[in-house]
Amino acid sequence: MNIPPLSTILIKNIQIYAEKAVIKTGYLFLKNGKIASFGPMEDYSEKESVNEFIDFSDLPGYKAVPGMIDLHIHGVNGADTMDATHKALTVMAESLPKEGTTSFLATTITQETAAIEKALQNAGDYISHQRPSGSAEVLGIHLEGPFINSSMAGAQPKQYIKNPNLALFKEWQELANQQIKVVTLAPEQPGGIELIQHLKQQGIVASIGHSNATYEQVNQAIAAGASQVTHLFNQMTGLHHREPGVVGAALLREELKAEIIVDGIHIRPEVIKLVFNQKKEKGLILITDSMRAKCLKNGIYELGGQEVVVENEKATLMDGTLAGSILKMNQAIRNIISITGCSLEQAIEMGSLNPAKQLKIDDKKGSIEKGKDADIVILNELNEVMLTICQGKIAYNQLNV
Amino acid sequence: MNIPPLSTILIKNIQIYAEKAVIKTGYLFLKNGKIASFGPMEDYSEKESVNEFIDFSDLPGYKAVPGMIDLHIHGVNGADTMDATHKALTVMAESLPKEGTTSFLATTITQETAAIEKALQNAGDYISHQRPSGSAEVLGIHLEGPFINSSMAGAQPKQYIKNPNLALFKEWQELANQQIKVVTLAPEQPGGIELIQHLKQQGIVASIGHSNATYEQVNQAIAAGASQVTHLFNQMTGLHHREPGVVGAALLREELKAEIIVDGIHIRPEVIKLVFNQKKEKGLILITDSMRAKCLKNGIYELGGQEVVVENEKATLMDGTLAGSILKMNQAIRNIISITGCSLEQAIEMGSLNPAKQLKIDDKKGSIEKGKDADIVILNELNEVMLTICQGKIAYNQLNV
Repeated sequence: MNIPPLSTILIKNIQIYAEKAVIKTGYLFLKNGKIASFGPMEDYSEKESVNEFIDFSDLPGYKAVPGMIDLHIHGVNGADTMDATHKALTVMAESLPKEGTTSFLATTITQETAAIEKALQNAGDYISHQRPSGSAEVLGIHLEGPFINSSMAGAQPKQYIKNPNLALFKEWQELANQQIKVVTLAPEQPGGIELIQHLKQQGIVASIGHSNATYEQVNQAIAAGASQVTHLFNQMTGLHHREPGVVGAALLREELKAEIIVDGIHIRPEVIKLVFNQKKEKGLILITDSMRAKCLKNGIYELGGQEVVVENEKATLMDGTLAGSILKMNQAIRNIISITGCSLEQAIEMGSLNPAKQLKIDDKKGSIEKGKDADIVILNELNEVMLTICQGKIAYNQLNV
Repeated sequence: MNIPPLSTILIKNIQIYAEKAVIKTGYLFLKNGKIASFGPMEDYSEKESVNEFIDFSDLPGYKAVPGMIDLHIHGVNGADTMDATHKALTVMAESLPKEGTTSFLATTITQETAAIEKALQNAGDYISHQRPSGSAEVLGIHLEGPFINSSMAGAQPKQYIKNPNLALFKEWQELANQQIKVVTLAPEQPGGIELIQHLKQQGIVASIGHSNATYEQVNQAIAAGASQVTHLFNQMTGLHHREPGVVGAALLREELKAEIIVDGIHIRPEVIKLVFNQKKEKGLILITDSMRAKCLKNGIYELGGQEVVVENEKATLMDGTLAGSILKMNQAIRNIISITGCSLEQAIEMGSLNPAKQLKIDDKKGSIEKGKDADIVILNELNEVMLTICQGKIAYNQLNV
């Protein structure tokens, strides 16, 4: 196989999961980090390109899908957003293509103010210096906490939880170089609605999470501009038949897109099925919520200054509270398909298009469409990641060709 | 209007909600208690009948629907199944056509053995002497309790709750003249699965209710033959994302039809919407679960030997526990339509066809089909009951013609 100049990649004879159709045998031509053209093989004319990168004639069952976008990920491979170093973000960006993730939000956790500020400043700075380099793109920051409800803390250290604070948020957004794109917050806390209104105004996603809001309070939050819930079912008011809570609102209100951790641990498969029946692919966003232990062996790790035990695919605080996951995005894709019986098209909608829409960057990410970023993942017949291209550069290559 | 001989009734120029189609302008010819024929007006030939009963030419918006079947009703109009008199059942049978109910299961409540036995014997005897007489038909008995879980008693008096007991059930079924058709029970209690197996064998519906079963225990109950849940959401294990409980199983398992009280009090309208999205019309059975105060004024009444306050459309024990309802079936039909946006066809499927199927009597009840019992309700444009016919006899007539 000849590695072509990185500015042009041609992929031939592969099934292509484009936004509007699945092309059975197609070509995909990537140029200068963008999807320059694609279509059925019969429409391919040699003059369009001089490089032939990979021909999948001998690999039926392989397909090109858009790169996944993880809106909620703390860490991977030993690195965590809260490490507040460029190195940590680089490790994350370089590790994630292996699981099919081509862009993500570096996600913070409730900590003392100085630690959060350091992480925000670091990520903001990292992003402003970011150039396409064959690794996943940091799209911004997901601020998870401290503006949450301590009764729904989960693995967020309670002692640092604060009431939603608009002035503080503004300072932080400044520090973060305007890179905070999603804020997980509890709308029922004093200042919650005010903060949501500001976020809405600024085009930032207000995501209801770690919240014991009532159904009415969620409705108020939606009216103020909330458009998402954070890891549906985990750390929020459950469904009661006379008080549907955050879960009920998430299931019922189309205005709310729901992050969901499909590792089969955070939510039981049967309940995921029920959620999918209700929200359909349009309403769900696959996230990993993974912490630094992902891709490492079992043992004791750190999250938010706390010890976390990782074993049996599970990450928990010493008291058994779930503390993030070690879920990989490609596994989430496989899980949602096997649990719900949905199609791969539907799965990638939940893993790529919906998060892109949520961040209002679906003009450049979230699907295979002409002119969008060349964030492409090649899956084999088992939907394992075989090749990942980030903005036109090869970031991970497991092909034996 | 000439009242024709009761053995033949002809209804003309009315919209007919038949099982397989809605006939815009049709006729309905009832003879000897059965639906002799029906169809579009143009197919009607004068020779089929000599009586003209009612012509709805001047009442557009009126429609004929099948009579409703209430599988779960304790009482109405001062009478209760536990009164254990023919008179009480007669009052119920004569009161229910007003709300569009043409047949029902007389439903018992947890009480001391002697009281239950008296009620069973009375109902069994009543049914064996029952003849079509222009009132609702008692189709059998719903034994609610005492084989339930005291942690989910609700308004069932705890002191009389017993473990499921096959030998006792057999005695009771004997006493009841084989008229017990549905048993509400807690499968997780000792003897629960054994009783379900027996019920299944006997063609009796095992309905999971007043139960704190886990999802696994419900699965075992389904394997043993359970096919229903009693008043979904009320007095059962709720939905948790890692333990879906009876609610989760009811929402997820198609084998389970769910009774539902659509009064907007037992379950909040939003949650009813969610349930409908999940179960669809095929999976739901509208019930009233009404007690003797229905059709009477606000005040203090009796249920299961306990005082019940009825006010604001709500029936509660002194401690606030909901104690049945005062819901009317026609109101349930209107509510499910306004809450879910479902069609009248779907509503009557939940109110008539599904309960008939559940009792395996859909060869003679549950829809407007040739040869089935002439249980017909005429609704006006607001879906209010204007005329009710029970087995070919007029039971309620509010028409001003």
